Amino acid sequence: MEKELDLQLYNVRTDLALEAKEMAEAPRGGPIPGIQSETTEDNGITITQLHVQNEEGSQAIGKMQGHYVTIEVPDLRNGDTGLQDRVATQFAKHFESFLERLSINKMARVLIVGLGNWNVTPDALGPLVVENVMVTRHFFELMPDQVAPGYRAVSAVAPGVLGITGIESSEIVQGIVEKTHPDVVIAIDALASKSVERVNTTIQIADTGIHPGSGIGNKRKGLTKEIIGVPVIAIGVPTVVYASTIVNNTLEMMQSHFKNHSGNTDQIMGLMNQMEENERLQLVKEVLSPLGHDLLVTPKEIDEFIEDIANIIASGLNASLHEAVDTNNVAAYTH
Amino acid sequence: MEKELDLQLYNVRTDLALEAKEMAEAPRGGPIPGIQSETTEDNGITITQLHVQNEEGSQAIGKMQGHYVTIEVPDLRNGDTGLQDRVATQFAKHFESFLERLSINKMARVLIVGLGNWNVTPDALGPLVVENVMVTRHFFELMPDQVAPGYRAVSAVAPGVLGITGIESSEIVQGIVEKTHPDVVIAIDALASKSVERVNTTIQIADTGIHPGSGIGNKRKGLTKEIIGVPVIAIGVPTVVYASTIVNNTLEMMQSHFKNHSGNTDQIMGLMNQMEENERLQLVKEVLSPLGHDLLVTPKEIDEFIEDIANIIASGLNASLHEAVDTNNVAAYTH
Amino acid sequence: MEKELDLQLYNVRTDLALEAKEMAEAPRGGPIPGIQSETTEDNGITITQLHVQNEEGSQAIGKMQGHYVTIEVPDLRNGDTGLQDRVATQFAKHFESFLERLSINKMARVLIVGLGNWNVTPDALGPLVVENVMVTRHFFELMPDQVAPGYRAVSAVAPGVLGITGIESSEIVQGIVEKTHPDVVIAIDALASKSVERVNTTIQIADTGIHPGSGIGNKRKGLTKEIIGVPVIAIGVPTVVYASTIVNNTLEMMQSHFKNHSGNTDQIMGLMNQMEENERLQLVKEVLSPLGHDLLVTPKEIDEFIEDIANIIASGLNASLHEAVDTNNVAAYTH
Amino acid sequence: MEKELDLQLYNVRTDLALEAKEMAEAPRGGPIPGIQSETTEDNGITITQLHVQNEEGSQAIGKMQGHYVTIEVPDLRNGDTGLQDRVATQFAKHFESFLERLSINKMARVLIVGLGNWNVTPDALGPLVVENVMVTRHFFELMPDQVAPGYRAVSAVAPGVLGITGIESSEIVQGIVEKTHPDVVIAIDALASKSVERVNTTIQIADTGIHPGSGIGNKRKGLTKEIIGVPVIAIGVPTVVYASTIVNNTLEMMQSHFKNHSGNTDQIMGLMNQMEENERLQLVKEVLSPLGHDLLVTPKEIDEFIEDIANIIASGLNASLHEAVDTNNVAAYTH
Repeated sequence: MEKELDLQLYNVRTDLALEAKEMAEAPRGGPIPGIQSETTEDNGITITQLHVQNEEGSQAIGKMQGHYVTIEVPDLRNGDTGLQDRVATQFAKHFESFLERLSINKMARVLIVGLGNWNVTPDALGPLVVENVMVTRHFFELMPDQVAPGYRAVSAVAPGVLGITGIESSEIVQGIVEKTHPDVVIAIDALASKSVERVNTTIQIADTGIHPGSGIGNKRKGLTKEIIGVPVIAIGVPTVVYASTIVNNTLEMMQSHFKNHSGNTDQIMGLMNQMEENERLQLVKEVLSPLGHDLLVTPKEIDEFIEDIANIIASGLNASLHEAVDTNNVAAYTH
Repeated sequence: MEKELDLQLYNVRTDLALEAKEMAEAPRGGPIPGIQSETTEDNGITITQLHVQNEEGSQAIGKMQGHYVTIEVPDLRNGDTGLQDRVATQFAKHFESFLERLSINKMARVLIVGLGNWNVTPDALGPLVVENVMVTRHFFELMPDQVAPGYRAVSAVAPGVLGITGIESSEIVQGIVEKTHPDVVIAIDALASKSVERVNTTIQIADTGIHPGSGIGNKRKGLTKEIIGVPVIAIGVPTVVYASTIVNNTLEMMQSHFKNHSGNTDQIMGLMNQMEENERLQLVKEVLSPLGHDLLVTPKEIDEFIEDIANIIASGLNASLHEAVDTNNVAAYTH
Repeated sequence: MEKELDLQLYNVRTDLALEAKEMAEAPRGGPIPGIQSETTEDNGITITQLHVQNEEGSQAIGKMQGHYVTIEVPDLRNGDTGLQDRVATQFAKHFESFLERLSINKMARVLIVGLGNWNVTPDALGPLVVENVMVTRHFFELMPDQVAPGYRAVSAVAPGVLGITGIESSEIVQGIVEKTHPDVVIAIDALASKSVERVNTTIQIADTGIHPGSGIGNKRKGLTKEIIGVPVIAIGVPTVVYASTIVNNTLEMMQSHFKNHSGNTDQIMGLMNQMEENERLQLVKEVLSPLGHDLLVTPKEIDEFIEDIANIIASGLNASLHEAVDTNNVAAYTH
Repeated sequence: MEKELDLQLYNVRTDLALEAKEMAEAPRGGPIPGIQSETTEDNGITITQLHVQNEEGSQAIGKMQGHYVTIEVPDLRNGDTGLQDRVATQFAKHFESFLERLSINKMARVLIVGLGNWNVTPDALGPLVVENVMVTRHFFELMPDQVAPGYRAVSAVAPGVLGITGIESSEIVQGIVEKTHPDVVIAIDALASKSVERVNTTIQIADTGIHPGSGIGNKRKGLTKEIIGVPVIAIGVPTVVYASTIVNNTLEMMQSHFKNHSGNTDQIMGLMNQMEENERLQLVKEVLSPLGHDLLVTPKEIDEFIEDIANIIASGLNASLHEAVDTNNVAAYTH
């Protein structure tokens, strides 16, 4: 029971498996059984491969079993187009490996689903990717003989949110899948992170699909292989963070700060120094919530950030889905 | 064969049954067998009830058998909010009668489909109505006991266009219908008119559904009871007109003008005076097309017009679909 | 020197005089000489009249001498249109008193200036008000005899931001003022607050003009009577908050929380309990800044909030500037 | 008097000097004294240099004395990015020559003025160029020593339209010019054309400034050297056409059509064949206007067209105004 509550807590607070693992590791001070991870860094881009191998690992970090790739690029918010192109290329490379591991072949038909609300800027990532991605399915349907080699059938929809359509987005997607028979669904969604610095600088790819309670749009039904009938690869970018997790995260950074500067952390931070992360978070939420302070917040510059990262993902998808699109110059195929 | 060509011609040039009837009547100089129509006028709002009763009538005007209601409001482009409210109320009243004639009862579940491309202003009518209409289906699904009386289950989707999704909008709608089981579909679409003055001043309601080649978005598959499995009511507003039909329409008006001013029309207009409308239109198209002149055009102020008329339709739908929403003050329920 | 630093600090962290006063009062535990204030509450709307009477008061809270009215409406983010209308009416009433105190008569010509960047949602408040406000100056210029009584000459501009125009907005406004000779300028700007709950729920009116470093757009030149030559009334709404002030504000709330629950605050919070607010804020910034965490953030739902509050201000301005516009039904004059 | 009426007529109907010249030449069947012109064609781009040398020429075509460059690219509406880049390069080349002829040196300070209404898509050209152009003036003001060589001081404003600001845009520009002292103003405006095929495919550059009645926004005051005090270069793109001129233009094309196909044009077109263009246009307007048919119309795809051409102009301006920006790769400097 309490376990569930904790999981719920984790789910609400971070949609990134990487952060959930960090949170779970902190109190233990070491690696978690059932979680395997490997990190590489290349010129400002950090890639973490994380494998939740079994139920024990899943329980420990509150994330589904499966593979997660996290691409972290702290400088992504600077608007450097050269860096953006490099990230799109890295994304394409890792997304291709993902397709290979799932044995999704080069002609498999793809449906891209852009979840979220186009009227709420930080929730508009999915619909923006759908606008920018290259669709080709209609050419395969209408004139299959004339499609150049190196392309596959790709379609894309933005199903909207419950408050606008009155229909769960997973139901809309199911209906479309049953009608158009894609071999795999790629679902893009805006996420909540627990740290401000990961907002709009991080992309997560996961083979687990989308689960209830993940994403920022209060989905109550998931988008998984069980529900949809075909594998669902989830691509997510944290675009918001709870006010309470900003506070908690900062307190944690203060602890490390004092430790590193050999201060007496207990003296400075009192009992707060001894609380576990969840305990402290609970305290912060208790203080913030009654006053309506515990909002989801997003950086002031979200309009520009969300455009940039939607373009990166659209470019990366184009390059990884179509052999004819060059991974070295992916940006040219989107606008 | 020629008949078909003609039909095609009509279809491309006007989506309004009322205009198709006028075009067919002109050369005959009288009423058309199989077409029944009645017009009433009230304080600047003209309502025409048109019934295409049989195959003969359908062939003659190139429109499907069924009922059509046309609401014409020449002053609608003036931005008068009082008039807009009156039009919404009239629309609601006639839409209710439409539902009654189709024996669609007060609790029948409705799916509103906004056809068209939100990135192309004159084609964005459908998606804009979807944004503004009141959806309630999720309340009926999640807490059926708590829904106040006087409401029915309404859902709404904007399926996008082939060039953005790679999927026919009719396929998307089919998938959603099969998943959510509405009793009736209401499809909203931007239309082409043959006369500039009807653009953004006219609303057509029809029980025929949407047919291939109608609307301005080059639909190639229809949205009809045969395809979808439930009745489809089409709501359309002309937002564009072909350059060639502007020319042709003006020549026609010149003819009447000279006749009324007792001029020798033959002398003034030469052979053009003796051509039938289609013949002359063919001529105009021949002259315009090679130079790429025969564009679909829309009034300069389309951004504002389309917002206004989408609000009128959304308000009218809210009032006619939910008994609890007052037809005398429909505007308050949209934004 | 240190004094200046402190002022700078306050300025950067909150643009609300009310919050600056609260921050200055906390360590003293009592009222500040040179600051007079009075608060009234009416059905969910709290109005504070704050008068910075002299240099001493100005130094103490880091805000210019002058009158400030703050309208706080915690429930404003709920989207309740009835409440929005009441706030517009209250705003109009207090804005009229403001004009009276400044001896600005009923025919004085007004220039409304919407500061900020229309491409950055939380900075778009000023431009949005300009779009929605009623302008009349051109009628007075072109057909002065035909303007109905009860109106005055109002013009409105959105000068843009330095990064888009290459020109300080104050220079643009000066140029326009010198050309069009208004009697008073009303400048609308998005502000930074120190507490999340005031974001998008608070309106500040001040007779001090706009000062360098205020607002969220990094203005480096002010908009004051000294620079512009006519009185400048500033209207501001906090739309963003620094991550660091969220943290600091929460720590402060934790202190009160423990005090109220008779905990040993020193024990729980350690030395942090004994720091002054500025000291602690400095500490938080030290921890957050190197990692690029100290962003300005805004609530996820900013798109809707900013529309709503811009409409409230535009409605309120219309009612207070034109006698012919009824304060009891101000909303009808905007869209 | 009648002369003036005719001029007015021309002005309202086409803002392109090239079209005005063609209209004036047609009845004469030959060149017009005081008008010199030269046309070159390069791979789909037609450039016409037109010089209105004296008052006689000006009267004849109803356009101000001065130099006009017209860039016509019939295929521009196809969305071919390669062609768009070539047009930007050609535009930059010709714009540079224009600056040279006006003896505007490489360090002359430039103010770019984007006329028009950002809420009316076909009138939003100017504001869109302002959004996309590179501004540098603030660097010259704030850190003159650190500006790299090869750049000049460029600022940019979109003054809005009378209905939104209550102020003539020329007054706003005058105020800004007096405050910021640019050496030259470049004014961008959407125009009316007389032929549908020139809409969104043609760019006109003129050293005459903007005159009352030109452009589609009903300007009543001009933007000329006499008014502003510095030279004004006008850049215009036709984005709309009157319904009546579409008709008239088509009748003209029908005449040529029948002539080319050796038909008896008199017989076919009656007296209309013998009317002069203006006479016939007057007739068409008489027929259309009472019914409110004589709207300004724009192609259905205006949203995309206007984005594309604003980017071309912004890219071209960047390349021609800053030596450091390469004319061979102008697109990289805009977004």
